[in-house]
Amino acid sequence: MLHRIRERASQTKTRSLRLGIGDDCALLSLSSSDELAITTDLSIAGRHFRLDWHQPESIGHRALARGLSDLAAMGARPVAAFLSLGLPSELTTSTNGRTSWVQRFLDGLLALGLAHKTPLAGGDLSESPLAFADIVLTGAVPRGRALLRSGARPGHLIYVTGSLGGAAAGLTQLADFAKNSVTRASGLRPPPIPTPLALRLAPHLYPQPRVAQGLVLQRRGIASAAIDISDGISTDLTHICEESRVAAEVDAELLPIHQGATLANALHGGEDYELLFTAPAMAHVPKQICGIPVTHIGRMVKAREGTAAVTLITPQGSQTLEPQGWQHFS
Amino acid sequence: MLHRIRERASQTKTRSLRLGIGDDCALLSLSSSDELAITTDLSIAGRHFRLDWHQPESIGHRALARGLSDLAAMGARPVAAFLSLGLPSELTTSTNGRTSWVQRFLDGLLALGLAHKTPLAGGDLSESPLAFADIVLTGAVPRGRALLRSGARPGHLIYVTGSLGGAAAGLTQLADFAKNSVTRASGLRPPPIPTPLALRLAPHLYPQPRVAQGLVLQRRGIASAAIDISDGISTDLTHICEESRVAAEVDAELLPIHQGATLANALHGGEDYELLFTAPAMAHVPKQICGIPVTHIGRMVKAREGTAAVTLITPQGSQTLEPQGWQHFS
Repeated sequence: MLHRIRERASQTKTRSLRLGIGDDCALLSLSSSDELAITTDLSIAGRHFRLDWHQPESIGHRALARGLSDLAAMGARPVAAFLSLGLPSELTTSTNGRTSWVQRFLDGLLALGLAHKTPLAGGDLSESPLAFADIVLTGAVPRGRALLRSGARPGHLIYVTGSLGGAAAGLTQLADFAKNSVTRASGLRPPPIPTPLALRLAPHLYPQPRVAQGLVLQRRGIASAAIDISDGISTDLTHICEESRVAAEVDAELLPIHQGATLANALHGGEDYELLFTAPAMAHVPKQICGIPVTHIGRMVKAREGTAAVTLITPQGSQTLEPQGWQHFS
Repeated sequence: MLHRIRERASQTKTRSLRLGIGDDCALLSLSSSDELAITTDLSIAGRHFRLDWHQPESIGHRALARGLSDLAAMGARPVAAFLSLGLPSELTTSTNGRTSWVQRFLDGLLALGLAHKTPLAGGDLSESPLAFADIVLTGAVPRGRALLRSGARPGHLIYVTGSLGGAAAGLTQLADFAKNSVTRASGLRPPPIPTPLALRLAPHLYPQPRVAQGLVLQRRGIASAAIDISDGISTDLTHICEESRVAAEVDAELLPIHQGATLANALHGGEDYELLFTAPAMAHVPKQICGIPVTHIGRMVKAREGTAAVTLITPQGSQTLEPQGWQHFS
């Protein structure tokens, strides 16, 4: 099993990765002008994915996407990924000549890694009654140039990439499909999804981390603060407010809501993996970056003692936007 | 909960850690002459520890020790640790004024981190029906100077630090104590261990990773190959043989068996976290490093097709030493 992973992982080689799987540690070599960005993200069965709803390729893709998206939010270039996997034994064995679950999980993970030139450089594997993955991403960013959550100032404008709520809306549709599917099988085999539906569910099943967009924001020095939308705007914008000690106003009518999604999906739905960033009002913010639209959705204002960090402004008036970070499946 | 961890983690500051918990990624800054070593290690309830046997402080200590030991085996200096925790909610709440399980887990982990000047720089936290921890360690090692598994050659001698089998023997004693304890409580509260027994169990409950010893081996250029004994000599020496494409002979009579441990404990018992290394016969290998004994236990020989990688030599003759890596609790 480990040999197989090592063989597959060794197919992506990069200059920064000096030593991959096979020793006590992996070795990375960075340019002396770079800092190393590191992030870890858990994906747990029943909480971040469901074995009876999600195809293994999607689970692997989404696990890596979570980490890549954190690098994107710092404006870092991916260097290498590490994967710790706890899996029940039935997910690591192939039966009746079928590809094992874990190999299909790796198919999804390694395909996204290849697309972002991110080798799998190490990790750990253990039998576990609960299926889970911890993904570790390392990235490089020029010293002192990382996009932080703490740089937003009153008067700065708020932007998001892409559209919002598509992942949450997709999850609802996936749940409906899985519950009503005639071919539904219990346990580990999710029902196959017809192609038209799979395309509609893409924002949920195969979210695209905005690595290229984060790099552009960092290199051009456009963003004063940035975060990725992993828990929904209501939660992630609150993080920016807390770290920058400012407040924010979001215009509901400006939000780029994904087709088929609701306002609530857009505000509180997690896992869109778009970037939310701020920039001074005078900054030249492009209308799109690498083909992905960039939308102005609000502004940062002074924090006032005793008032909410984020206010939602609608034609009917303004209301407090409490953090309602996506609660996954719990 | 996250705020509390952040507050506690921020008490250890180092020059290499530019940005710790609180953003999308942590940022590390290395000297341009260094490479970065990274390792991840899982600790899973029921497999690597038992909630009804191990005090939370010991579980936290052992989780970090696993990662530090991997750095030691590369001759790397620890830079920062990252922790992904999946925990049932009852382990994160304090009841009846008692300190919560997770705070006691962090007590153990952070105390060992402080001893090795290793700050906790990030991680993830999620509710999970199964308790588990994934520890990520980063370290620095001068470019091209890391101790690898692949450098052993026929004729090189084999050494280990400290004594062997103490952790496995301690586990057996802990199991006996837990099963027979009058004060035993079911579930999450392990019985308190009387001090004399706790001292005997120290190699199991509080193993000491050989970070200082690994650094000396690396700086003095003594070792041709190294690994830490996490799965037992039979398994870990086999890894050296595989990566170096050589075979090994171990003299049973030379093994520094821990007091109270058996030969089987010493050969196959995991989690001793001593270093096993090889050195040319002409190398000056000290009798002890930073107070820890170094013992010559065998030699590397040419690999021969169809014969076992590791042979155990006893007064009664020689026998094949099959990898019997410690199977934890499974």
